[in-house]
Amino acid sequence: MRFDRENGVVTSKYTVIAGGVGAARFLRGLAAAVDPSSITAVVNTGDDGWINGLWVSPDLDTVTYTVSGAIDTERGWGLGDESWRVMESVGRYASVRPDGSSAANTWFNLGDRDLATHLYRTARLREGASLSAITDEIRRAWELSLRIVPMCDQPVATLVDIVDTDGTERRVSFQEYFVQRRHGVPVRDVHFDGAADAIPTFLPDIDSADAVVIAPSNPIVSIGPIRALAGVDAALSARRNSVVAISPIIAGAALKGPADRMLIELGHEASVVGVARLYAPICSTLVIDQRDTDSVARVEAEGLRCVVADTIMSSLDVARALALTTISAVA
Amino acid sequence: MRFDRENGVVTSKYTVIAGGVGAARFLRGLAAAVDPSSITAVVNTGDDGWINGLWVSPDLDTVTYTVSGAIDTERGWGLGDESWRVMESVGRYASVRPDGSSAANTWFNLGDRDLATHLYRTARLREGASLSAITDEIRRAWELSLRIVPMCDQPVATLVDIVDTDGTERRVSFQEYFVQRRHGVPVRDVHFDGAADAIPTFLPDIDSADAVVIAPSNPIVSIGPIRALAGVDAALSARRNSVVAISPIIAGAALKGPADRMLIELGHEASVVGVARLYAPICSTLVIDQRDTDSVARVEAEGLRCVVADTIMSSLDVARALALTTISAVA
Repeated sequence: MRFDRENGVVTSKYTVIAGGVGAARFLRGLAAAVDPSSITAVVNTGDDGWINGLWVSPDLDTVTYTVSGAIDTERGWGLGDESWRVMESVGRYASVRPDGSSAANTWFNLGDRDLATHLYRTARLREGASLSAITDEIRRAWELSLRIVPMCDQPVATLVDIVDTDGTERRVSFQEYFVQRRHGVPVRDVHFDGAADAIPTFLPDIDSADAVVIAPSNPIVSIGPIRALAGVDAALSARRNSVVAISPIIAGAALKGPADRMLIELGHEASVVGVARLYAPICSTLVIDQRDTDSVARVEAEGLRCVVADTIMSSLDVARALALTTISAVA
Repeated sequence: MRFDRENGVVTSKYTVIAGGVGAARFLRGLAAAVDPSSITAVVNTGDDGWINGLWVSPDLDTVTYTVSGAIDTERGWGLGDESWRVMESVGRYASVRPDGSSAANTWFNLGDRDLATHLYRTARLREGASLSAITDEIRRAWELSLRIVPMCDQPVATLVDIVDTDGTERRVSFQEYFVQRRHGVPVRDVHFDGAADAIPTFLPDIDSADAVVIAPSNPIVSIGPIRALAGVDAALSARRNSVVAISPIIAGAALKGPADRMLIELGHEASVVGVARLYAPICSTLVIDQRDTDSVARVEAEGLRCVVADTIMSSLDVARALALTTISAVA
């Protein structure tokens, strides 16, 4: 809660723990529901990495592009009105490295318009700027009022132990699992490389927020890296009464991505109850979809209050309504 | 000279000291005149640098694209059938850096198709590959048989002391002079930063060549950086009888670029005679254009043999004829 002495206005503060698509849609709804400058989006950077010589931060960009209304809504990632001239040309360099492996990444598509963002971020990283500072510059370039902060300025890599298509167990980067293998292989374990040494910059934003929202993102690989940073779970549990999560699992399935399979493969339940168990230590309230109404009692048995809402953000109106329901639940 | 024991064939070897456009056209002609695998192009990298987070090697790419026939002949640089979607989008990030300066470089145009080359080179540099190895991979991607070698694997930066548009003397990178200021400001001096510590990789190619050609490139900022490397002038003068240069100055003017003005500003003569004086210690023969026939005696007075030819490579046929004339002059 902030009191503006000059105008005598009391403003609430909202901190949103965010992954990619689902979180971005929620943030767009929240920015339409409340003063955008009262929102801080803390975004997963475990999916970040070097692609074709550029540092790519998929979740940060999905949030920026979605809140701007510039995202390609059909594809779900990248910019609308996009072209692919650069990627088409990268193919020439796919197999010229002596060992036959490919420095030219031809499976992670970067659109021509989108590439400008990666070029800018990479150029600024080379200059020694922090990812936080760069992210704020990109936010201003898109004329957004909400704050967008990477979960940390140090590189953290989400690594996935998979059983590969050839039957071999392999540890691969998140993008090698998610994009290159289209998350079509079993997952044995997940690691957040570098998380122990990374410093979360947003702990004050948890302490001072009127409501902390855990967005409807993959609990393991989107929210997981943020929770893996030192002090985050402690900060959240200290504010547990003000922390509300939205279940990314609806009627036992993820709307998008592998969250449902991944939960099962890692020994959890792919249901709102499974989500409730994962979040119970840090979160007092879970928003579940209306299709899961019959699970309310089981969620509450895990020690969380349960709120039922339409969580399928098929329009900005639904997202705004969900945002209002969510923050009201802990306000 | 190489003797192929199996086929009993004697092959000559040609080493070409090369800058950008003029050298690239000459190399295309030479590759049409002799077995391309007998050619080694040693290319200036003093113009290289970081542009929008990518390592750009303009002369290397001009050589590769030109010999491939993929260059945009009207523009004189970059690829044909090009588009500019990425650069159009980079503009968004032009002025969001806190100090107002621009990490987003909006004045050095990189086409969408061309960007694939810079992405590949940058990705491989990040992996620790040498510029020589990467250049060879790019050559193979373009299916060229001639060898293309950067003058060295260490970064060397051509710096230009200019009198800027505001009257201030400034030291700027070559591209800030050449592209950003369209070489429209006076030059006071030129430096090759890092040249003293760089190791030329091509000295054996000077020693073993049947003919060493100094291509029609800017003697100061294209051939100059190569000559600034330790041992290069000594290696060339040891082979002086086999070294032939083509004058980039025709009737007192450069076909392209600022070579004529730069020669005058740095105290030289903007003529074939001025070129002859610069090359006399390392070069026995100078090829001059037919428009400079009346300068033959003055060139020979500088101690060089003088050969007259059509040096304006307006077609592949002219370039091939010039190449044959040039190598014949010292064979």
